[in-house]
Parts: sequence; C-alpha cells; structure tokens
Amino acid sequence: MSSVINIKEASSVPPLGDQGALYVIKIGGNVIDDEVKLSSFLQDFAAIEGKKVLVHGGGKLATRLAEQMGVQQQMVEGRRITDAETLKIVTMVYAGYINKNIVAQLQRYDCNAIGLSGADGNAIKAHKRAGAERDYGFAGDVDEVNAELINTLIEADNTIVLAPITHDKKGQLLNTNADTIAQETAKALSKLYEVDLIYTFEKKGVLTNIDDDESYIKQLDPSSYEGYKEKGTISSGMIPKLDNAFAALNFGVKKVIIGKSDELQQIIEGTSGTTIVND
Amino acid sequence: MSSVINIKEASSVPPLGDQGALYVIKIGGNVIDDEVKLSSFLQDFAAIEGKKVLVHGGGKLATRLAEQMGVQQQMVEGRRITDAETLKIVTMVYAGYINKNIVAQLQRYDCNAIGLSGADGNAIKAHKRAGAERDYGFAGDVDEVNAELINTLIEADNTIVLAPITHDKKGQLLNTNADTIAQETAKALSKLYEVDLIYTFEKKGVLTNIDDDESYIKQLDPSSYEGYKEKGTISSGMIPKLDNAFAALNFGVKKVIIGKSDELQQIIEGTSGTTIVND
Repeated sequence: MSSVINIKEASSVPPLGDQGALYVIKIGGNVIDDEVKLSSFLQDFAAIEGKKVLVHGGGKLATRLAEQMGVQQQMVEGRRITDAETLKIVTMVYAGYINKNIVAQLQRYDCNAIGLSGADGNAIKAHKRAGAERDYGFAGDVDEVNAELINTLIEADNTIVLAPITHDKKGQLLNTNADTIAQETAKALSKLYEVDLIYTFEKKGVLTNIDDDESYIKQLDPSSYEGYKEKGTISSGMIPKLDNAFAALNFGVKKVIIGKSDELQQIIEGTSGTTIVND
Repeated sequence: MSSVINIKEASSVPPLGDQGALYVIKIGGNVIDDEVKLSSFLQDFAAIEGKKVLVHGGGKLATRLAEQMGVQQQMVEGRRITDAETLKIVTMVYAGYINKNIVAQLQRYDCNAIGLSGADGNAIKAHKRAGAERDYGFAGDVDEVNAELINTLIEADNTIVLAPITHDKKGQLLNTNADTIAQETAKALSKLYEVDLIYTFEKKGVLTNIDDDESYIKQLDPSSYEGYKEKGTISSGMIPKLDNAFAALNFGVKKVIIGKSDELQQIIEGTSGTTIVND
C-alpha cells in the first residue's frame, strides 16, 4: 500500500483509473442526419450520470454542402479525399455547424457541453497521412490526445464534444476519422479513468444474421471472436471495427460496446449492445 | 494533479481585479479576409505576454459562401438579417472555419488557443432580439458572459478565441455582433482582472481628419470627447463606438484602445492608437 501512496505523491498524473468511470461515446452518422433522432439521442446522452465525452462525425451534411457549392467529392472505399476546398467544408460542417448545434442542444438539456476540435487547446495532434498507396489529401492520423486538457475540463464539470477535425501543431487543420478519434480518446483517457468506449450505429450490435436485428451477440471475448470468425458468422465489414475494439482493450480501455443509437440508455445499463471484453 | 488543484481553487471567484492584467482584443474584419495580414496579426497576438482573449467577427467569407450556396443575404444598416439558412452559414463560417483556422495558427505560434462559441460551456448566453422596429431573425443580444468558465480556462494556461455565435440556453444558436461580444466579455472579466479592451481596425485610431491616418487622437476622456463632439471633429460613424467605449469604462474596464490591426505591438506598448479613459 505504501508504494501506491508514494506513486500518488510523486506523479503529476494520477495513477491508472484513479478518477473513476468515464464513457467515451461515438454518435452514429445516421443520427446526425435526422433532427428528431438527434434530439432524442442527445437527451439520452445528457441523462447519463457521471463523466462522459461525445464524439461525432459528419453524416451527409458535408456532401450536401459540397454539392451546393459545386465542389466535387471523391470517395474511395468510404473515405473522403480531402482536398483544400473539402477541408474547408468539413471544418465548417463538423467543427462549426454540427458541433455547435450538438453543444447548444446539450446545454438546453442541462448538460454543460463544450465543443472542441483537435486544434482547440491542442486537444488532438495529428500528422498528414503520408506513404499510403493513395493521397488522401488533408487527412490526419492521430499522434496524441491531450488527456490533461480533457481531464482539466471534465474536473471543471464540462462535458466534451469532439469534432473529427485535428491539427498538426504547424497551423494545418486535418480531417480525421471519427471512429479513430473515439478510440484514441478512450485509450488516452484510460490512463486516468476506467473507460467504457461505446460506438452507436443503426443496428443492435454485432449480428450473427445481418437481416435479424435481434441476432446480436451479447458478449465477445478474444476466443469467442475467433470462433465466430472461423465460422464466418460475423460480416466482413465488422471485422476491422472489432479488431480495433480489441486493440483498444489492449491499450487499457475497460470495455467496448457496440449498440443501437436509440438504445443508449439500455447500452449503459448493460441490457443492449455487444460488449467486447478481454478474457 | 497540481493543475486540478488550481482549477478547484480558481472556481471560488477571487475578489475584484485580483487576477492581474488581461487584454480583450477584437480583430478587425479587414484582417480576416487577408491571409497574409491575418497570419502577421496572429503572430503579433501570440507574442503578447500575459493573459489575453481574442474576439473575431466574420469578414466577407459568410457573404461569399451565401452567394456560392445561392442563399440571398439581406443587410440593413450594416447588419445582417439572420434567417435560418443564414444562421447555418454564419455558424459554419464563424464558429467553424474562421475560429478553427485562427486557433490552429495560434497553436503553431505556441499560443495555447482554445476556440469557443457562446454555446460552449455556456460561455455567452443571449436572447433573440425582440421588439425592434425590424425583425433581425436569429440575432442575439447578450445576457451574460460566463467569466468563471473563461477564468478557469485562462488559469489552465489557455488563450480563449471567441466566435460571435451565442445561444439562448434553450437549444437555439444566435448570431451576435463581434464588437458587442468583445465589450461584454471585457465588462464581465473586469470583475476578476484589470482589463484593457482593444479594438483593431484599418485606421490608426479616432481621426480628426478622415483623410489623414496620422491625425489620430492619442487620448480621449469624457471632457475632451465632448469638446470634439461639439466641434464636429469626430466622424459620426465613430460616435456609437465611442459611446460604447465610455460605457465599458463605467462598467469597470480599465481602458479602451482603438488602433490599427498591423500595429498591435505598438498599441500594447502605448505608442499607437486612441486610448479612451475616464477622467
């Protein structure tokens, strides 16, 4: 026991998990595009007791704005190629319109939200993706999430809402995948908190039958995951997501839950969604 | 741990002026439209020692985006009528594109900037303007600036960058004049700091001859101001600005300085600009 106390006194950062539980929740793109669903989701989010961080992506708004502005969009395997004009659009839509509307609504529901891009307070430092087969333009790969800043804001009773725009600390904003932002934030904060990372989307969880929403797997651990993969039960589109989920666990995240956007309360209570844990 | 302790100490509000000097600086619209000027201004701003808050407006970018999107803009006496589509545009441009680009550039110059709209952390609560002769749409008049939040962030070594978008705490974002944001922020923070409020624009200060930039008045106090007004020396467009400046002084702001954007350093040193003080 005495050694633990010594560590506490010596370190400027509190030891692992010292700050209690924290949720990092990624809001699904399908919700952002639907005003009624979004409002209901944010009400559920505001009602969650305890510390929490919300991460959002962009939905279809950026694509629509690009069309209105006559800026052609190039998508490759679901990823947007971010040229200079597109970076301007996603910065406006993600860090501006979507982030501030989410924050204003959470404020309405008495959740003291504060919206951040990765540039704000150097929250998320990234670098422009290089050496890939394809040039993704101003796409950022995350280097570091500023857990100290986020912790400071949380301790001052703020709920962080993260937009998927990062920066390189050299003046360049970068477009970054929101799933990755959620994962990296969860990993960084797991040094301070017991983190549950929750991905919400349009299904109830990881399905064994793609046409049956009730066929979701309740719990996945490495060995059952291997079993499902061998049998080919889990759809190939889910595999990278699940590989990432297990990677997050290996970095200290307590559990990852994948579940339906309109069942956030049940996910928190543990009665819905697929929970991914280590053995 | 020490930063957490500081925050906790700061949240019990210290007495009047206890926190030392602070600058609230409004960046001129003409600078935001010019990439080279903006970069140079932000470098000067980053170099200012001590505590500081930057307030920006929107320049001509919102008007250009509205044109691109085919959204007609209605301006009445220099004020934008903010319908729903226009609110979306100014939220994207002011709180998104401009705010995040300023923050990213300041981060590059090692100024730990964090951008906020009025919705973030309930930084600036406003109400939709009502009872005016004309319906300005989603235009917000400021009710309250959250000095405690700003103080908490400043104490944690952040430099606030405020976008002129506020909210009503009922989920509605509102478009708000940036000069007003700067003034209200200076007034609210003058309860905690000795605040200098600096407005930068394209002239060297309040001119006695509109065609001669060197004719700027070095200092204005209420009696000299009355004298200039009686003689009709000061252009009518400056009168509301100066009335507001004196009002800010009456609310506790230490001094107001009006000066040229590219002479920020000299303004800080007291060798340029018009300084407005009470007797």
